[in-house]
Amino acid sequence: MWLQSAINLSPRTKGFHLVTDDIVEKLPDLAKLKVGVAHFFIKHTSASITINENADPTVRMDMESHFNYYVPENQIYYQHDYEGPDDMPAHIKASLLGSSVSIPIHNGHLALGIWQGIYLGEHRYNATSRTIIVTLNGE
Amino acid sequence: MWLQSAINLSPRTKGFHLVTDDIVEKLPDLAKLKVGVAHFFIKHTSASITINENADPTVRMDMESHFNYYVPENQIYYQHDYEGPDDMPAHIKASLLGSSVSIPIHNGHLALGIWQGIYLGEHRYNATSRTIIVTLNGE
Amino acid sequence: MWLQSAINLSPRTKGFHLVTDDIVEKLPDLAKLKVGVAHFFIKHTSASITINENADPTVRMDMESHFNYYVPENQIYYQHDYEGPDDMPAHIKASLLGSSVSIPIHNGHLALGIWQGIYLGEHRYNATSRTIIVTLNGE
Repeated sequence: MWLQSAINLSPRTKGFHLVTDDIVEKLPDLAKLKVGVAHFFIKHTSASITINENADPTVRMDMESHFNYYVPENQIYYQHDYEGPDDMPAHIKASLLGSSVSIPIHNGHLALGIWQGIYLGEHRYNATSRTIIVTLNGE
Repeated sequence: MWLQSAINLSPRTKGFHLVTDDIVEKLPDLAKLKVGVAHFFIKHTSASITINENADPTVRMDMESHFNYYVPENQIYYQHDYEGPDDMPAHIKASLLGSSVSIPIHNGHLALGIWQGIYLGEHRYNATSRTIIVTLNGE
Repeated sequence: MWLQSAINLSPRTKGFHLVTDDIVEKLPDLAKLKVGVAHFFIKHTSASITINENADPTVRMDMESHFNYYVPENQIYYQHDYEGPDDMPAHIKASLLGSSVSIPIHNGHLALGIWQGIYLGEHRYNATSRTIIVTLNGE
């Protein structure tokens, strides 16, 4: 069984955001699958999707601090800055963190670990909404 | 055909560990699939799974040195340190390296390159066993 | 439906290269799938595959500058340097960027965002051709 849909996430501030519930509530069909894989793909090159700790908001804040420190704005070697100082860092972060996550499906649920959640990495200051293509495959 | 199982990897020291054989020996059903994709998902946010060189142990040592250098402990901006100086670095490494790998299946085997193996990235000093959900899909 | 093939990419210079068209033109069967997931796996540990901006060549140049700066050659802690100063940095970049990408299939096409393309990260100075295993699964 294949189920594919587009989910729009409302605009977020620059940083990391826990979006597991925002996504799962739009996937009622997940309950139909006993076993499978759920694929989440973000259709943007200045935002990312990753899996990390779902409980303490300071983890998301520290992630943002770290990626800003190691992927700084205004590096002397940047040539691509059409859209401001956050432009090229956003592209680099997108590849470091990734454009998709795949999560096993088990008995109608995402088989995440107890501390795992899905993060949206929003790497632009003035972001619009972000589209995620969800493809569920299983039986 | 869908085959899903949980594999427990015994506790490892902090660092990168080649675990291809530990995993494949627990997947006798792999032989039944002519074509497909094998998905390996680690249910933890302070360990990671990645693919890298399978021959020289110094690659794993250099990986550990590099990730410790560029994801240091005790950064002034860390707020999340409940579980010690390795806590927040472990979360960052988990997202940099990733929580899953997908490998093509070809004629009953993982279609890895000749030099490729599966690495467990153990990012905590005192780790417990780690659980990997393996989902095989193919025909 | 499962379709698997090996694509050889001709040798590239060290850096990031947009290879979407090189790959898609070798996948005529993509048109047969209304919904699915396309999996691209590079069988090497000194090259990577990632998704990023498909329009401005300076993005690829800035990516190369950034990864060279933060994954430098000749770090004092490298032990693995059999094949020259680009040896260990290539392995680290392979794990940072990843060995595979998965892209949703929608109505016979890769459901990439308008600005997204597939990058080959070539991390060696003197590279040979690179093999990518493509596995298309869908209906």
